[in-house]
Amino acid sequence: MPEPGAFTIHATDGNARRATLSTAHGDIQTPIFMPVGTQGTVKALCPEDLHGIGAQIILGNTYHLYLRPGDELVARRGGLHKFMHWDRPILTDSGGFQVFSLQEIRKITEQGVEFRSYIDGSKHFFSPEKAVEIQQNLGSDIMMVLDECVGYGADHEYTAKSLELTTRWAQRCREFHPKGKNGQLLFGITQGGFFKDLRELSLAQLREIDFDGFAIGGLSVGESTTEMYDILSHIAPMLPAEKPRYLMGVGTPLDILEGIEHGVDMFDCVLPSRNARNGTLYTSQGKVNIKRAEFREDDAPLDPQCDCYTCRNFSRAYLRHLYVAKEILSYRLNTIHNLAFFLKTVALARKAIETGTLAKLKRAYQAVYEARA
Amino acid sequence: MPEPGAFTIHATDGNARRATLSTAHGDIQTPIFMPVGTQGTVKALCPEDLHGIGAQIILGNTYHLYLRPGDELVARRGGLHKFMHWDRPILTDSGGFQVFSLQEIRKITEQGVEFRSYIDGSKHFFSPEKAVEIQQNLGSDIMMVLDECVGYGADHEYTAKSLELTTRWAQRCREFHPKGKNGQLLFGITQGGFFKDLRELSLAQLREIDFDGFAIGGLSVGESTTEMYDILSHIAPMLPAEKPRYLMGVGTPLDILEGIEHGVDMFDCVLPSRNARNGTLYTSQGKVNIKRAEFREDDAPLDPQCDCYTCRNFSRAYLRHLYVAKEILSYRLNTIHNLAFFLKTVALARKAIETGTLAKLKRAYQAVYEARA
Repeated sequence: MPEPGAFTIHATDGNARRATLSTAHGDIQTPIFMPVGTQGTVKALCPEDLHGIGAQIILGNTYHLYLRPGDELVARRGGLHKFMHWDRPILTDSGGFQVFSLQEIRKITEQGVEFRSYIDGSKHFFSPEKAVEIQQNLGSDIMMVLDECVGYGADHEYTAKSLELTTRWAQRCREFHPKGKNGQLLFGITQGGFFKDLRELSLAQLREIDFDGFAIGGLSVGESTTEMYDILSHIAPMLPAEKPRYLMGVGTPLDILEGIEHGVDMFDCVLPSRNARNGTLYTSQGKVNIKRAEFREDDAPLDPQCDCYTCRNFSRAYLRHLYVAKEILSYRLNTIHNLAFFLKTVALARKAIETGTLAKLKRAYQAVYEARA
Repeated sequence: MPEPGAFTIHATDGNARRATLSTAHGDIQTPIFMPVGTQGTVKALCPEDLHGIGAQIILGNTYHLYLRPGDELVARRGGLHKFMHWDRPILTDSGGFQVFSLQEIRKITEQGVEFRSYIDGSKHFFSPEKAVEIQQNLGSDIMMVLDECVGYGADHEYTAKSLELTTRWAQRCREFHPKGKNGQLLFGITQGGFFKDLRELSLAQLREIDFDGFAIGGLSVGESTTEMYDILSHIAPMLPAEKPRYLMGVGTPLDILEGIEHGVDMFDCVLPSRNARNGTLYTSQGKVNIKRAEFREDDAPLDPQCDCYTCRNFSRAYLRHLYVAKEILSYRLNTIHNLAFFLKTVALARKAIETGTLAKLKRAYQAVYEARA
């Protein structure tokens, strides 16, 4: 088996790459989308459901798992893989995004960030070392450094100061977790908001640290599509070509294809699973809201071009009934389909890169999808 | 394939019978427990989950399906089996129990019962013929007659009057649905409250009508275990021996074994699925509440003697975490286990009848379970 962190590029199409990333729990074919499993489960699905839709890697949220059930408890259970009965790769975020976005009350110092639990209001402190230690306890295959995620609208001065802190924290994370330790990879996160000079500065500083991969943080935080794509198209191709590139928390099917086009390899987003629970479903003909009256007597599968469990076995009329009746099965069937659609999108992108037809694939999606939908 | 309604007794143990009931969607090995699928889905489960735990037949609620999505809509979809992707037998109740127990405002006349929708307050009317017509539309394998289910505490006079009405309604149901029509069976329901003379009277009247099976209605409505078992043990063995016997809405594992002992073949109850969603789980060592702190770090399966999907793959610690975190997967894993436990209980009873050891099986359950738990 290849060394964790080995990254082999098989084909390119412009800046887009078709590659394999090796981890301690197996290889990942990229570009890939990672379903989000916040609390040790991808909401409404069991591991076999994820196998069924071809999920190669899932994401766990450090912030949530630290608070409940607790990373040390998970470690005593043999790690997150064993705890949740998932034998494929897991990426954990650093908890930074949740701390900075979910918390009203939090205090940043050079040492780290203090915050309150969303569960019981209790005080907690994440240093860069602590954020990594938690991820070590969870036993994820890919860990993320603690970063400060500045909100949309932060000025140049604040953003510059913040990225310097993020760099110092990144350095501390790497020192706390030397390369190769326990087969767990560590990715750096570039920040710099919506200023190209700061994005370049952040990247230049992080390149000096020997990370196993590089992420783009701080996008999809309230900016326009134009602003986001402007930064994405500028910085993504500048990330080290020989390492995996991860665009955090993004996004829609077109966002993902845009990211792939600019050389991104990995994506995660709650959009498909959260939308599934709200009845908003992705199909080859665009987004549909399953609760609409037009589906009351519609015997067709949700997406005739989809071969997921939901589309193979149930009609739009039944899915609408389950949704309207608020049945638990509704959440599961909808989530299976939406995640299958996102995983199919990256599978099609992988094939397109191999045949040099990524631009054509993107045009096909543009015919039925808008950028931020 | 045998004619729907064919009922073959293979073995007996006292009053208990081990039999096979044939329906249009296949044979049912009795005694059997029927998971309740109120709104066209057994809550939190998909049909494959039900296959996995050996469910042979499920129950659908006429009252709920009539109101939403509507029996005519279901008929236009090809019936309930096709609509919900379930290819094994379905029994539907008549809606009577819901109308009489859920409704504050309802009006009974000779003609039928008027009630209001729990969804939007709209007025509706069930005649005996209408209740059967709805079940014809749903296409269930076993239909139930419309009956008046008198509450606990009704006096002899009211109960007597009520059972006469139930008999007249039963007659009208049979006339509306002649024996053998569309392969759909029709069961009569004996009433009579907690008066043995009225129970016998009800049965004597219903015997005159050629039903495909006989149910005991009006138990588990608030009475003590002693009162319930007193009526059950008196009337169950008097039901026609050559037809399937169904004890409606009952009950706990010991209730079921008690029913089997007195000659009942079929049971349904929301107890295992509802309790599952509340974190109350049935095991070979008794009931447990999965949210208890003692399970925080318990790596054992919920029930080491159980081979259901939940027990094969997940620990008590993980099940507790999912429950505390209110994860959707919690409802599914708990429901799979509880229904597996009830289905295993009747499977053990079938085997025990074949070997003449039902009393021994019941004693084993009595060692860890109380009658009404």
